[in-house]
Amino acid sequence: MDKICYFAPATSANLSAGYDLLGLALNFEYHSKALGDKVTVSKASEPGVQIGQIMGVPKDALPFSPDKNTASVAVKALLDHVQYSGGIVLDIEKNMPLCSGMGSSAASAAAAVVATNHLLDLNLSKKQLIPFAMQGEKAASGNAHADNVAPALLGGIVVIRSYFPLDIIRLPVPDNLYISIIHPNIEINTAQARSLVPPQISVAHCTQQMGNIASFISGLFLNDMKLVSQGIEDWIAEPYRAISIPGFSLVKQAAIEAGALGAGLSGSGPSMFAFSDSIEVAQKSALKMSKVFERQHISNHVYYGKISTQGAHQIF
Amino acid sequence: MDKICYFAPATSANLSAGYDLLGLALNFEYHSKALGDKVTVSKASEPGVQIGQIMGVPKDALPFSPDKNTASVAVKALLDHVQYSGGIVLDIEKNMPLCSGMGSSAASAAAAVVATNHLLDLNLSKKQLIPFAMQGEKAASGNAHADNVAPALLGGIVVIRSYFPLDIIRLPVPDNLYISIIHPNIEINTAQARSLVPPQISVAHCTQQMGNIASFISGLFLNDMKLVSQGIEDWIAEPYRAISIPGFSLVKQAAIEAGALGAGLSGSGPSMFAFSDSIEVAQKSALKMSKVFERQHISNHVYYGKISTQGAHQIF
Repeated sequence: MDKICYFAPATSANLSAGYDLLGLALNFEYHSKALGDKVTVSKASEPGVQIGQIMGVPKDALPFSPDKNTASVAVKALLDHVQYSGGIVLDIEKNMPLCSGMGSSAASAAAAVVATNHLLDLNLSKKQLIPFAMQGEKAASGNAHADNVAPALLGGIVVIRSYFPLDIIRLPVPDNLYISIIHPNIEINTAQARSLVPPQISVAHCTQQMGNIASFISGLFLNDMKLVSQGIEDWIAEPYRAISIPGFSLVKQAAIEAGALGAGLSGSGPSMFAFSDSIEVAQKSALKMSKVFERQHISNHVYYGKISTQGAHQIF
Repeated sequence: MDKICYFAPATSANLSAGYDLLGLALNFEYHSKALGDKVTVSKASEPGVQIGQIMGVPKDALPFSPDKNTASVAVKALLDHVQYSGGIVLDIEKNMPLCSGMGSSAASAAAAVVATNHLLDLNLSKKQLIPFAMQGEKAASGNAHADNVAPALLGGIVVIRSYFPLDIIRLPVPDNLYISIIHPNIEINTAQARSLVPPQISVAHCTQQMGNIASFISGLFLNDMKLVSQGIEDWIAEPYRAISIPGFSLVKQAAIEAGALGAGLSGSGPSMFAFSDSIEVAQKSALKMSKVFERQHISNHVYYGKISTQGAHQIF
């Protein structure tokens, strides 16, 4: 084997109930293919990591420099760790929008490290690969967060319990849990979005937020959609970030009126998510949310479907 | 029937993982009887609620005034709600120390409302009785909190997800989860203890604490004692309240060295708790914690055992 290709799915982080803690993998279609990135890893004679092709995005939209591209930065961190001195070329095929709040950088980094791990027979587990993929996130946003790369690698719904040491809890995924995502065509800078979040919170809001994540998680374990629904509320980031999304409250309200369990920002936006307990409500929520943006003359793309329980997987 | 007696167990709130949110019921013995309070409710000819006898505590330790005693305040709130105009007498038999951080006021209030509910055939559920018992807590500490009365009534481990509306989540109780409590003979004022907690917390500590409660709850659902253990940490209240407990860190360390899963303040103290995954470790933790207080010439009482899954129940 001198060439291996892996796919890693798009993801949604925070989920309102768990700022900087929760993330899940999306099982969506986009242009009749799975929403996410494929990375093909090949051995090369020249030492170091190089980017070969980047497909599916406008030319120059993403960096080819190995020190800047999230996929190559992640793979370099992995190769440094295992002291591999050979050459690697990464070909990236993106099938998702950039800067959407759906983990575009995470999907490339996750697919790249898991493919490299396989190609070089490194035998690291997906959990062990997370810290390397996080280095890709750091290159993309300045912050080595795991709430997109962890679900992109592992699939399902995860909690990043701690970073030092890195500790990931996998939560159950109810069969009847669906998610809708709407991606409005507006620009949000992740680093800037983080800076909008005040550094302090009242203890009253903190305990309320602890109650929210407790409810959300208990709901997943008990398959109790009322508990899931009650947990979908964010007192930490959303009240401050929402002002960057035109009509945020109306979009949220549209989803809830369509029967969604709750709605909020996907990651730091601009995408928004809604949870539902049936595919019909997931579709209706997506369309109703879309209408609110359309009324404001903001073009948008909607997705709905299940959570990917598989995570990153081999294509060839 | 014109006389009914209910017992409600001692409780421990906060549990480090869930300040103002988590509570559990203790299945302990004290003086060869269950740790907690019995309240006998009788009908009387004179309208209103009266306190008859208070047994098991020094004379004048607790108020006889119906407007001040936690049990009568709770029952008055219940009777006002159902518009009962008859007379009620409460006889209270306490079998637990006062001001210990083990829910003494909650046990009296819980036993009193559940016994009154039964005597008068009010047919309210235990969950429906919580708001009335909370009024007893308000009389005792100025704060109508539910993290002792809810587990005292319902048993088990509970989350107070929200107060408006009141919403309680019951968590699973692993068979192999044991708890030790040490009550050092020092005085802590609950209202004062609350005032030590700063009103603000950093978002970083808040998300860490959300990770803690997520880990603790996931551990209970998965019967994963490592996850339970990782959750037992408090960034909100304990760092500030602990200074009132001489040798707090050493006591905690002693429990952990004895093999406990974690340890912290029970409620607002002065009692401290430790969780263990066997009765042997629970005993050893209790004794090791006791030694730390003894070395400081602080008399103390230790308890260890299981969590009461039954909660308040009828005696006769």
